[in-house]
Amino acid sequence: MRFYNVSTPEEVIQIIQSRVNPLSAERIPLGEAGGRICAETIYSTEDVPAFDRSTVDGYAVRSMDTFGASDSAPALLTVTGEIEIGAQALPLGKDSCAYIPTGGMLPPGADAVVMVEHCETMENLVTIHRPVAPGENVIRRGEDFQKGEEIVEKGRLLRAQDLGALAAAGIRELPVTKRPTVGILSSGNELLPYETESLPSGKVRDCNALMIGELCRKKGAEILFGGISPDDPGIFRKRVEELLEQTDFVVLSGGSSVGTRDFTVQVLGELTEASLLVEGIAIQPGKPTLFSICQGKPVMGLPGHPVSAMSIFLLFGTRVIDALSGKTVPPFQPVVPAVLAQNIPSRIGRTDSVRVRLEQKNGLLYATPIFGRSGLLRTLTHAHGFILVPSSFEGIASGETVSVILYGMNTYE
Amino acid sequence: MRFYNVSTPEEVIQIIQSRVNPLSAERIPLGEAGGRICAETIYSTEDVPAFDRSTVDGYAVRSMDTFGASDSAPALLTVTGEIEIGAQALPLGKDSCAYIPTGGMLPPGADAVVMVEHCETMENLVTIHRPVAPGENVIRRGEDFQKGEEIVEKGRLLRAQDLGALAAAGIRELPVTKRPTVGILSSGNELLPYETESLPSGKVRDCNALMIGELCRKKGAEILFGGISPDDPGIFRKRVEELLEQTDFVVLSGGSSVGTRDFTVQVLGELTEASLLVEGIAIQPGKPTLFSICQGKPVMGLPGHPVSAMSIFLLFGTRVIDALSGKTVPPFQPVVPAVLAQNIPSRIGRTDSVRVRLEQKNGLLYATPIFGRSGLLRTLTHAHGFILVPSSFEGIASGETVSVILYGMNTYE
Repeated sequence: MRFYNVSTPEEVIQIIQSRVNPLSAERIPLGEAGGRICAETIYSTEDVPAFDRSTVDGYAVRSMDTFGASDSAPALLTVTGEIEIGAQALPLGKDSCAYIPTGGMLPPGADAVVMVEHCETMENLVTIHRPVAPGENVIRRGEDFQKGEEIVEKGRLLRAQDLGALAAAGIRELPVTKRPTVGILSSGNELLPYETESLPSGKVRDCNALMIGELCRKKGAEILFGGISPDDPGIFRKRVEELLEQTDFVVLSGGSSVGTRDFTVQVLGELTEASLLVEGIAIQPGKPTLFSICQGKPVMGLPGHPVSAMSIFLLFGTRVIDALSGKTVPPFQPVVPAVLAQNIPSRIGRTDSVRVRLEQKNGLLYATPIFGRSGLLRTLTHAHGFILVPSSFEGIASGETVSVILYGMNTYE
Repeated sequence: MRFYNVSTPEEVIQIIQSRVNPLSAERIPLGEAGGRICAETIYSTEDVPAFDRSTVDGYAVRSMDTFGASDSAPALLTVTGEIEIGAQALPLGKDSCAYIPTGGMLPPGADAVVMVEHCETMENLVTIHRPVAPGENVIRRGEDFQKGEEIVEKGRLLRAQDLGALAAAGIRELPVTKRPTVGILSSGNELLPYETESLPSGKVRDCNALMIGELCRKKGAEILFGGISPDDPGIFRKRVEELLEQTDFVVLSGGSSVGTRDFTVQVLGELTEASLLVEGIAIQPGKPTLFSICQGKPVMGLPGHPVSAMSIFLLFGTRVIDALSGKTVPPFQPVVPAVLAQNIPSRIGRTDSVRVRLEQKNGLLYATPIFGRSGLLRTLTHAHGFILVPSSFEGIASGETVSVILYGMNTYE
């Protein structure tokens, strides 16, 4: 048995962020950019909106014509026209006004709009009982984005509203970081493809590859399944080398036993241009995790137990995908507070990742820890999320408020 | 101008959940089921795992052979073999043991495993200094899922771990609700496709359709863009009828002016088998929202301002997609607590949806409200999420803790 040094979770995150570089960029149409990572800061090439627009249905006026207007001395303006939505508006003269719909273009000369609710109309005359300020009920040209102003910054994950703003500014295509391709290789003589109908004695179906693949898909990565390697260092090494050539990030799943772990370490050491950066993490479950850079590409060796594999990939594997995507590290970690419904014992010196089930009771959210061996998938399917017990804690008492990281939250997005 | 009754946000949610029915189911391969909604409760057709498995590297033993073992009177067992991972194990006799790797099959007769760290080996003898309990370091056959036990329930959004559990149980395909197809129709004489390079005077690019489309995509829906209809009731009605035939949910975007809203109400009333259920919501921004069931299909009329449109679609449109998908309403609403950095004024009688930007300072998360007209996209691109000020509040004071719904949170997933 080989002894090894463990890294703290913070050290592993630091290693990933400093050693994994973003992939190159590609230009794609705006309509396909949702969920992708912006590879360059994008500036507006025009004023948005391109003209002064009304934000209400009303009358476009020169605000100075309404100054001093009151119930006893209302302003009387002549209606000289109706502005059609989407059309160029004709200039407005003194003491006149024009009907304007929401979104309509202000006529040259006008600088404000009086809401239709605040006017009285008689034939072609409009009576206004109070003054409007310059700019009232108007979005000015360039008020949303001025020509040359930043719309979205490099490293941003493009959300619905970011696409909307880029569309408004006439950005039809933009550079995004290429989607990372993740190669997933399972290993273990006991494994058969999950599609296997009838299991021979002693065999199990490979469920980790599918699970990790789904986490990658949610992060926007492409997946290349490398199949199942037997516990044979030669074959295993060849498969890892093939995946290193074809993908941007190699994830090794399985090999839960000490022996398999040792030969994984050995194979990762034998590859050319390889440096093993992490050979264990002070976290439970998931301690026997490996992280290496081989031929410039990240390689992660996950523990074999499904719960450990998923827990580690959520906390660290998704960050490798973010780093490859050039995604800016978010300034805060979204968590949901909940009242702990049961004591959690913990050991000083390692971080504990504890699955919890959430329940709303009397207006409060309660988190019940799901204890159970890390080989049991049911502890994952019953959970809504997990909490991290810091390494300096001996445990957390029932009734305390804990921070839950939800599985559905896309934690690091 | 037509006056109308407004519904509360809670009433609108109630209407959606009671009036929108799930689509039919389809069977798909397990590998494609991530993010889909399970259409039937799935039960395990076999025991998972299919045999007693070791969770450690060690020696498989009959626990009774170790009872009473201590430093002064250790148990001495004869090693009668080594269990290969993935292979059928031979029966174990009295006072004997067999080396077993993690995940290996327990030999018939054995009921526990002694960790290799707790044994001393000398040639073919193993010395054990403390007793092991029956079942120690073993996952028993069926301990994860027993044959006939529920794995995932109807209405669940299938996450990575759900796929893993189904894979382990040999479920190769399963029924999921069909993906809803959302038809998006923009209207307005001022609108041109967002791909338009150079805007004629008075025109703007249609950014709402792209934005709403991205929110639908994130919810797993298919999108059919119906283009831009001019402000002509006849053409508009024809386009709505076409989309009603081709899709499961029609979203009307644009028509911010009172006139356009009125003809949208008129057209929705003229369609056969149509009932207008919501003709305004007591929420700001987004009051002039319409919701109708036409020919059995939900139709939502969004306000034209981009911020209002997005805000309303996030709160209500995504729930229509969930209802069509047959997704169970989650038992809690995930929110992130933050300290309000500025006062928010509000009016009693309506819910205010206020965009906020989050910032971590001295270990605390602060939410700064982004005030600004609902025509401005920048208020959306700068925001991380939003808070809802209940209709009974006159505002929220700076320093109070508020609940932020993050845009990236997939709120209702």
